[in-house]
Amino acid sequence: MTNAIAVNSARSRVMDSFNQQNVMGLIGANLAMVEAGQVDIVLPYRADLCQQHGFLHAGISSMIADSAGGYAALSIFDQGENVLTTEFKMNFLEPAQGDRFMARGRVVKPGRRMTVCQVEVYAYQDGLRVLCVVGLMTVVRVKAMGVE
Amino acid sequence: MTNAIAVNSARSRVMDSFNQQNVMGLIGANLAMVEAGQVDIVLPYRADLCQQHGFLHAGISSMIADSAGGYAALSIFDQGENVLTTEFKMNFLEPAQGDRFMARGRVVKPGRRMTVCQVEVYAYQDGLRVLCVVGLMTVVRVKAMGVE
Amino acid sequence: MTNAIAVNSARSRVMDSFNQQNVMGLIGANLAMVEAGQVDIVLPYRADLCQQHGFLHAGISSMIADSAGGYAALSIFDQGENVLTTEFKMNFLEPAQGDRFMARGRVVKPGRRMTVCQVEVYAYQDGLRVLCVVGLMTVVRVKAMGVE
Amino acid sequence: MTNAIAVNSARSRVMDSFNQQNVMGLIGANLAMVEAGQVDIVLPYRADLCQQHGFLHAGISSMIADSAGGYAALSIFDQGENVLTTEFKMNFLEPAQGDRFMARGRVVKPGRRMTVCQVEVYAYQDGLRVLCVVGLMTVVRVKAMGVE
Repeated sequence: MTNAIAVNSARSRVMDSFNQQNVMGLIGANLAMVEAGQVDIVLPYRADLCQQHGFLHAGISSMIADSAGGYAALSIFDQGENVLTTEFKMNFLEPAQGDRFMARGRVVKPGRRMTVCQVEVYAYQDGLRVLCVVGLMTVVRVKAMGVE
Repeated sequence: MTNAIAVNSARSRVMDSFNQQNVMGLIGANLAMVEAGQVDIVLPYRADLCQQHGFLHAGISSMIADSAGGYAALSIFDQGENVLTTEFKMNFLEPAQGDRFMARGRVVKPGRRMTVCQVEVYAYQDGLRVLCVVGLMTVVRVKAMGVE
Repeated sequence: MTNAIAVNSARSRVMDSFNQQNVMGLIGANLAMVEAGQVDIVLPYRADLCQQHGFLHAGISSMIADSAGGYAALSIFDQGENVLTTEFKMNFLEPAQGDRFMARGRVVKPGRRMTVCQVEVYAYQDGLRVLCVVGLMTVVRVKAMGVE
Repeated sequence: MTNAIAVNSARSRVMDSFNQQNVMGLIGANLAMVEAGQVDIVLPYRADLCQQHGFLHAGISSMIADSAGGYAALSIFDQGENVLTTEFKMNFLEPAQGDRFMARGRVVKPGRRMTVCQVEVYAYQDGLRVLCVVGLMTVVRVKAMGVE
């Protein structure tokens, strides 16, 4: 019961924050799953999100990956805390080609100050799922609007 | 003379590729400078590019940084070659707050296959320039539409 | 049968290469497991491998992580090919304290040119295993002594 | 005058810490320069520091790079503070071949908690200096023996 409440609270905080992220709306990304320590974001294909070869732009992949990782961290933070990315590293394994993409963020190591997350981006095409991006990122907790 | 022609050719190839990048249009980014091995991209502030604190979204910073680095590499590639990012790492030093942002990409080590670039993103506010992001990235040459 | 031979061949090539790596001998590291695409390296504690706080030096953690990842890639390469690291990224999650350490490398995405591996370093103390380092790395195949 | 004292104090703290780093002694590395925010470490060639091709092992390069960056940060920290690496990223540009190597660490962004440094490793051979590694790293301040 307590756990269910905590998860619901995490979910609603993540959803609230996501809905304030104009940039997620700009590209048409949606929250697909929120669990304690793991968040999935889904992005349907749009031509204007692609680079010159018709693949999802590496920057767009990074954006949904960064958001998925950040929200995965936020999902285990306390009420009133927010999240700020301090660094990330992405490896682009395959061109991201598909009719939709899914970014998954997962907390690897929660910390009082720094939390490290692993992120992945998958492309779905013709029923196949291809791992396109793997990454690692560090986020910090911020209070309200403050930084660090 | 030959050099001037080479630079002009590099510039026109970078500009052609940039103009095909729908995603640069989506966010309102512009090419500000193209030299052999260095490219600057400028992005004016827009509320819909920001995250929940009103700072430029880390994913947007990364996108212009990635593009600046990729084009810096493309500027020294041969005619008919294209560029694909294989990995990058970004450190977010300061919240990116300002009325415009500038991403600078610079080739650190050109290679037959892999080229390594350094990237920076600056925020301009009230006449001050603040370094917000530093990054390193690897790109590869691709022929026409092919990959690797 | 063919598979068993291939695995044996991979194992013996990895072991041969490992034994030529003077630096693994210098620090006292040993190959603990070689499978196709995964390699474990074990390092017993030694005071002279530590930094000023008595934790395993981040450079030593990186060294065994890098080797584990490189050998994981080598284990799936062809006869006559060798491996060279082109980049890596390590996140140090916890101080590495223990009586021995284990680095695990695993191929995430094999490629004709570039192969991406994930690496982890664990510390063992009093029967507990603590994840101290996670990392991502890119290696390339090299022929004999040649590079790239 | 005050500045000279501060620099001397930084230098002596860096030297003290360096001399406690057994691992620097193990590989034969020396402090070559300490300025506020910049530190150089020199490592003479030794066969047992090389990988199977006779190049300096990527882990050894990383170790001196990590130390140079960490000490660059320490050089601007306060008395009684110590330094701990939380993450780094290295790009290996060229095989590190030479009779000596120099790692340079430089503070890019000092912070109350996190400090970001840029690092480079150069190889010297026949009077030529070749840039072999570029990297970015984050360190945190720690009090005495405490972590985070």
